[in-house]
Amino acid sequence: MYIPTFQDMLDAHDRIKPYIHRTPVLTSSYFNELTGAELFFKCENFQKAGAFKVRGASNAVFGLSDEDAAKGVCTHSSGNHALSLSYAAGRRGIPCNVVMPRTAPEAKKAAVRGYGGIITECEPSTTNREEVFAQVQAATGGDFVHPYNDPRVIAGQGTCSREFLEQMAQEQGGGLDMMVAPIGGGGMISGTCLTLSHLAPDIKIIASEPEQADDAYRSFKAGHIIADDAPVTIADGLKVPLKERTWHFVSNHVSEILTASEQEIIDAMKLTWQRMKLVMEPSCAVPLATILKNKELFAGKRVGVIVTGGNVDLDMLPWMLS
Amino acid sequence: MYIPTFQDMLDAHDRIKPYIHRTPVLTSSYFNELTGAELFFKCENFQKAGAFKVRGASNAVFGLSDEDAAKGVCTHSSGNHALSLSYAAGRRGIPCNVVMPRTAPEAKKAAVRGYGGIITECEPSTTNREEVFAQVQAATGGDFVHPYNDPRVIAGQGTCSREFLEQMAQEQGGGLDMMVAPIGGGGMISGTCLTLSHLAPDIKIIASEPEQADDAYRSFKAGHIIADDAPVTIADGLKVPLKERTWHFVSNHVSEILTASEQEIIDAMKLTWQRMKLVMEPSCAVPLATILKNKELFAGKRVGVIVTGGNVDLDMLPWMLS
Repeated sequence: MYIPTFQDMLDAHDRIKPYIHRTPVLTSSYFNELTGAELFFKCENFQKAGAFKVRGASNAVFGLSDEDAAKGVCTHSSGNHALSLSYAAGRRGIPCNVVMPRTAPEAKKAAVRGYGGIITECEPSTTNREEVFAQVQAATGGDFVHPYNDPRVIAGQGTCSREFLEQMAQEQGGGLDMMVAPIGGGGMISGTCLTLSHLAPDIKIIASEPEQADDAYRSFKAGHIIADDAPVTIADGLKVPLKERTWHFVSNHVSEILTASEQEIIDAMKLTWQRMKLVMEPSCAVPLATILKNKELFAGKRVGVIVTGGNVDLDMLPWMLS
Repeated sequence: MYIPTFQDMLDAHDRIKPYIHRTPVLTSSYFNELTGAELFFKCENFQKAGAFKVRGASNAVFGLSDEDAAKGVCTHSSGNHALSLSYAAGRRGIPCNVVMPRTAPEAKKAAVRGYGGIITECEPSTTNREEVFAQVQAATGGDFVHPYNDPRVIAGQGTCSREFLEQMAQEQGGGLDMMVAPIGGGGMISGTCLTLSHLAPDIKIIASEPEQADDAYRSFKAGHIIADDAPVTIADGLKVPLKERTWHFVSNHVSEILTASEQEIIDAMKLTWQRMKLVMEPSCAVPLATILKNKELFAGKRVGVIVTGGNVDLDMLPWMLS
C-alpha cells in the first residue's frame, strides 16, 4: 500500500495551481465571542467546483500520462468528488464517468453534467455503489480515481493545509493551535495530517463527524476500521467509511474525533449563513457544530476550520424541511 | 446645503478603520464567462453588521463631540442603516433609536435589537415613516443620522470605493472600466461618485434599480427628483427616494441607471448563492441582474460590482415563496 509523502503533496501543489483557487481565510468576531476561541475559516466553499475535492481530483487527472488520460477517468462519489473530477477532466479535455447515488442533491447532479461528467445512478448504499461502479469501469476502461483512498487524492487535499499555514503567517499574524475538519472517508483529514505532520507537528488535528454517521469515531475508539453500509445524515458528504490509506493517517495523526447531532449541524449551518454570509453545505457545518458543543476544548486557542464546500440545493434547505 | 468633499472621505476612512472590515474582492470565472466581462465583487456582505452602511453610520457616530454623543443618535431605515447605526452606537456606548417599517425582515429587527438599538415601528410608507420619526426624535433629542442624505454618511460610504481601488491595484493587476452599485436613496452611489470623481474619473459609474421602484431612473431621465411613496419590491433596501444631496452626485457623476424586474433580481440572487457561495440580500443582486440583462454594455470591460449586504431572512427566501 503506497502512502503519499510530503514531496507528493508539494508536487501536487505545483501541478494543480493553474486549476484551483487560493481560497481566502475569513474570521468572525461573532463566532470568536460565541466560542471564546480565535477561529480562522479556510473557505474551500469558494474553491473551483465549490469544494476542496478539486485539489485531489486535479492532481490525479493532471498526473496521468497522455496515453492513460486518453481513456478518461471514472469514480463513484456522493457528490463533490464527482463534480471536481468532472471539472478537472473537462479542463484536460478527457471523458469522466461517475456513479452517484440517486438520492444525491439535484444541484450536484446538474453541476456534474454542467462540467461534462456522465452520470450512472446507484442505490444509496456502499455495496450497491461499488457494484454499479465495477460495471461502469469495465465498460469504459477509465482510470479509477477513488474519492479519498487514493494517494494522488490525499496528496492533493494536503495542499489546502499548506496554503492555510502560509496565509496564517502572511495575513493572520501567526500559526494555529488546532485544525478542525469534517471526516467522512477521510481524504481531507488525511491530507491535513500529511501536511501538518511535516510543517507544523504541534498543531492538534481534530476530526468532526455526524453522530448518525459516526463510523470514524467508533473506528478511532476501537483501533480498527468499522464501516457502516448506509448511514442517514443531512451531511451527505460524510456518509462513506474510512479505507486503509485514510485509516493510516487518522490512526497515526488525529488527536480526537468529535460528533454532532443532526439538529446541531443544521443550527451551525444556518448560523454561519446568517452571521458569516457564507453558503456552506451541511457536511462542512459539522466542525463548527462540534466546536460550539465543546467550547472548553477550544477556548483561548487559535483554531483553523476548513470550510469544505458550498454545494447545497437551495430549494431543499434543511431548516425549510423540518 | 453642504456637499461632502474628498477630504471628508479621507477623514472618514481614518475615523472608521477600527470599526469596519476591509472586505475582500472576489471573482467568479462562471460569471465572467456568462457575461463576457471581467467582474470584481467587493463583498460588503462580509462587512460589520452585514452591509456597507456601517461605514457611513460609524463616521457619523464617531465624529460627534462627547457632548452631542451623550444624547445618542436616531434614524429611520428600512433595515441595514438601522443595524449599522445600532452597531456603531453600541461601539461608542451611546443610545440609538430607530424607526423601522413593521414589514422589515424579522432578521433585521432581531439584529438591531441584538446590537442594542431601540425600535419604534411605522407603516411602510415614506410619509408615515417621517411622521413617526419626528415624534421619536422630539422625545429623545438624539442626533439624527439620515440613512443617506447626510454628508457624514455619504463620506463614509465613499471609503468603500477607495478600498476597492486599492485592492484592484494591489491584488487584481489594474483598475476598472466601470463600477456598478444598487441605488435606493443613493448613499452608496453618492459615496462612489465622491471618491471616483477624484481618484479615477474615467471609471463609468452605473446605478442599478428595481423596475418596481425605479424612481431614480425616472428622476435621472426627467432631470429632477421624482419620489414614490411606497414602492413594492423584493429589494427592500431600495425603496426610498433620492434626496437633494444624493441627487447632486447622481445628476453630476452617474453615467446610466439600469433596471431589472423582480424575477430577474431573484434569479441573479439565487445564481450568486449557487455559484459564488455568497449570502447576499435581494437589493444587492440588482447590479448583477442588470449586468446579465445588458451584457453588451459590459462585455470586454473590467467591472467593479459592490455587493452591498447580506442581511436576509433565511426562513423567507424569495425562491421559496413563489
